[in-house]
Amino acid sequence: MQISTLEAIEILGTVAFAISGSFAAMQKRLDPFGVLIIAFVTSIGGGTVRDLLLGDTPVAWMRDVNYCLLILLTSIATIFFKTHIKKFKVTLFLFDSLGLGLFTMLGIQKGIVFGLSPGICIALGTITGCFGGIIRDTLLNTIPLIFKREVYATACILGGVLYYALLYFNLKDDVAQIVVMAFIFALRIVVVRYKLTLPRFGF
Amino acid sequence: MQISTLEAIEILGTVAFAISGSFAAMQKRLDPFGVLIIAFVTSIGGGTVRDLLLGDTPVAWMRDVNYCLLILLTSIATIFFKTHIKKFKVTLFLFDSLGLGLFTMLGIQKGIVFGLSPGICIALGTITGCFGGIIRDTLLNTIPLIFKREVYATACILGGVLYYALLYFNLKDDVAQIVVMAFIFALRIVVVRYKLTLPRFGF
Amino acid sequence: MQISTLEAIEILGTVAFAISGSFAAMQKRLDPFGVLIIAFVTSIGGGTVRDLLLGDTPVAWMRDVNYCLLILLTSIATIFFKTHIKKFKVTLFLFDSLGLGLFTMLGIQKGIVFGLSPGICIALGTITGCFGGIIRDTLLNTIPLIFKREVYATACILGGVLYYALLYFNLKDDVAQIVVMAFIFALRIVVVRYKLTLPRFGF
Repeated sequence: MQISTLEAIEILGTVAFAISGSFAAMQKRLDPFGVLIIAFVTSIGGGTVRDLLLGDTPVAWMRDVNYCLLILLTSIATIFFKTHIKKFKVTLFLFDSLGLGLFTMLGIQKGIVFGLSPGICIALGTITGCFGGIIRDTLLNTIPLIFKREVYATACILGGVLYYALLYFNLKDDVAQIVVMAFIFALRIVVVRYKLTLPRFGF
Repeated sequence: MQISTLEAIEILGTVAFAISGSFAAMQKRLDPFGVLIIAFVTSIGGGTVRDLLLGDTPVAWMRDVNYCLLILLTSIATIFFKTHIKKFKVTLFLFDSLGLGLFTMLGIQKGIVFGLSPGICIALGTITGCFGGIIRDTLLNTIPLIFKREVYATACILGGVLYYALLYFNLKDDVAQIVVMAFIFALRIVVVRYKLTLPRFGF
Repeated sequence: MQISTLEAIEILGTVAFAISGSFAAMQKRLDPFGVLIIAFVTSIGGGTVRDLLLGDTPVAWMRDVNYCLLILLTSIATIFFKTHIKKFKVTLFLFDSLGLGLFTMLGIQKGIVFGLSPGICIALGTITGCFGGIIRDTLLNTIPLIFKREVYATACILGGVLYYALLYFNLKDDVAQIVVMAFIFALRIVVVRYKLTLPRFGF
């Protein structure tokens, strides 16, 4: 039961990031193979870095060819349906935020499976959520979303803290996971919609 | 016999990428240690990422100091012979393309040794071939060749598909390997020479 | 005794790089979480890449939450004390150079523990010393210090060679380590102060 929930999250997150990667690559007018490669690294980037850090190798996507097929099909479907989508930038943003929430939760769960302490698990969740997008933006030569001051990694960290707070108050694990994923997704939307920023320390 | 063929490919690929790395670093007017470092990361970058993903650690170059010596000597030789080479840009391109073909084949072979499925092996070959050059170009602050729309990663993917097609039609493994390496090398030259590009999806 | 010396070096190096990361992030006017993340990756970047290459996973900072706490506290302290520091650029440079010397020695020692040959150990030391700073500068979108022609990686390589030379002449190991760390720190200061550069090979 627990495992199937995690699997569902992983499939949803993979699809969300594959769509966000395909959109970003099409926006940069890459050729079909380029779109596929960017969709691929966006989807598997975060989980790959997480698995490397944990030493859980061969990394996940190598052990299950289905994820590669899922990304391939998602990428092709995105290319075909693009003419039906008008608000391009908004779509990219929504799927990126959705993937962020899903993968952050997944990273935290994997840390718990490996018996790591809460602080490390939150760091692992943040890495899992953020790295796919960071690699995507770096490869496409755009400034990574994480540095656009839109409370990106911060959303993952706050989501992770919220998760442990909810568990502390005896919320059911499954419910807490869904609340946290919705929180990260909603936080990103609110922050970008109302152009909120954290105070910063400069000179 | 099989192993010695692979070893020969690895030595040739290491030398080719060490030369391409040295040339790129000299073009940017780095100091001698800088040239050596760029030659080093270009040569070992692809194989290192491949070994990390597979969990085959300590990574290859740490287990065999001979590869480090080979890169060192190649780099020094390249510095000394540079005055004899006129068409600098062409030389860099040729050795980069040669290394691409050799390392792609090597990555596929290593994936097969690890018992991975064809799709994953092709991805692994593409990673092995491309990452040395990507790291080289990123460190030198130039736009990676892979994004210059010159059918770079695409050549690796097509080469990998060709390899499995040749095996499917019962071609001898050694012959298939040589055909694929020559195919990737030739494809890069044809594409750049005639400025071919794939159609792309933009807005 | 040997272990405690290494631990002391690691703690000092972690603090030095956490300070240098916090300063660099504040200079770019990041928000509090941004400063924390940059302090974190600067401190753990080099050791993480080293441990990944060696296959020593889960990587060090995941096994000991104390390092994360140390970085967190250092980062907060740096933010609070910033108003007392006038020569910002100089402070960043000094702590970066200090961390470079400490982490280079640490990487060499870890290579020796893994039974690797001197050449590989020096490479490992250079990676441990340089990568935290490279990742910091890459994430902050500034040109990495390593490419500013200030004898950065070169200092690590020369320090590593000096270490093996001192051991060869039967200097006590602990003394040799301290000499090498002081050498790297001093070399960086002399080079930047007097704007020294190595000759380079261009066209």
